Amino acid sequence: MNKSGKFITLEGGEGVGKTTNIPFIKNYLQDQNIPVIVTREPGGTRLAEKIRELLLHANDETVTSHAEILLIFAARAQHLNHVIIPALAQGHWVLCDRFTDATYAYQGGGRGMSLEAISWLENFVQDDLRPDITLLLDVPVETGMARAKNRGGGLDRFESERLQFFNQVRQAYLKQAQQYPERIKVIKAYQPLDIVQKAIVETLKSLLT
Amino acid sequence: MNKSGKFITLEGGEGVGKTTNIPFIKNYLQDQNIPVIVTREPGGTRLAEKIRELLLHANDETVTSHAEILLIFAARAQHLNHVIIPALAQGHWVLCDRFTDATYAYQGGGRGMSLEAISWLENFVQDDLRPDITLLLDVPVETGMARAKNRGGGLDRFESERLQFFNQVRQAYLKQAQQYPERIKVIKAYQPLDIVQKAIVETLKSLLT
Repeated sequence: MNKSGKFITLEGGEGVGKTTNIPFIKNYLQDQNIPVIVTREPGGTRLAEKIRELLLHANDETVTSHAEILLIFAARAQHLNHVIIPALAQGHWVLCDRFTDATYAYQGGGRGMSLEAISWLENFVQDDLRPDITLLLDVPVETGMARAKNRGGGLDRFESERLQFFNQVRQAYLKQAQQYPERIKVIKAYQPLDIVQKAIVETLKSLLT
Repeated sequence: MNKSGKFITLEGGEGVGKTTNIPFIKNYLQDQNIPVIVTREPGGTRLAEKIRELLLHANDETVTSHAEILLIFAARAQHLNHVIIPALAQGHWVLCDRFTDATYAYQGGGRGMSLEAISWLENFVQDDLRPDITLLLDVPVETGMARAKNRGGGLDRFESERLQFFNQVRQAYLKQAQQYPERIKVIKAYQPLDIVQKAIVETLKSLLT
């Protein structure tokens, strides 16, 4: 793959501060004269956003765990092919709100899907493409859920899952970080915002050299 | 799996006579006092039908071959879990218009997707469930396409593919039949209808004993 831009993903559970920090990261990179596009998963293309709708609001029919993970990777294939890979090839940096680490965390850690199956699908859809850096915003689950609730607008199907589920998600995220310490940087996102953002900038600087 | 009904799939390319023969098979089985449900792929549940729509009418965005096959198996997971497996468990027979052999034929033979990948997805979604019998209606591609065009209503995205593609599909279907001769019965569907339907009945009788 002809790839000259950098691929940054932002990960974490509910209410860890992704919504606040995505524009911060985008602005920081643009201040360094780096062309950056912001996107999200599941979604990022018209078809992938339709798949996202099926995933988040299919309340009239239970989505089996197998269908769920296949839909997630189908959306990812569209997103990679139509958005992420072309942007990176043009030298743009891509900042993506959640990516495959979220699948390991939510579907693997949260719902108990086999990690071998996730790994097979990851290789099938992504070949050898992985993020250059992943910022994992980590907060205790109780803190994150309280923040997510205060945001209003109601909880979607994923957000409605129980506390135990989110603890499993958090542990799975931290396990991913242990497995890929060079790529995944854990940010203690329960600290004051200025300290969190200083840590984010320090991590981004490692990509700028 | 608690399975007391029989699972019959009907396969074949464009214009082989599935639309004519599905009601014939249903009526034949009902005449033997067998409870039978008729369903189709991709589709068969509300969510799976929505996925079918994405597959057949996504003309505003090219569907990558990876996304296509993941969507097909996502729909299949829903269909199996919500329709096919519960019906078989209740003792109903299930007659399905296309199933996984179509994936080997269209995505494998037609689009060149790796057969190993299809096989992995088949085992992932179906575990050890396979049809009890598969009727493969086989006609030369030119005959089938002429029939499909006369049916009217325009050609959908799959049907618009070129002749060479359909020849690859036909050969892949026949290869599946060679690989699973006990399960897949090839019906020479270019013969007169009464002869075709006599051959179908002979095959169904093998399930009735």
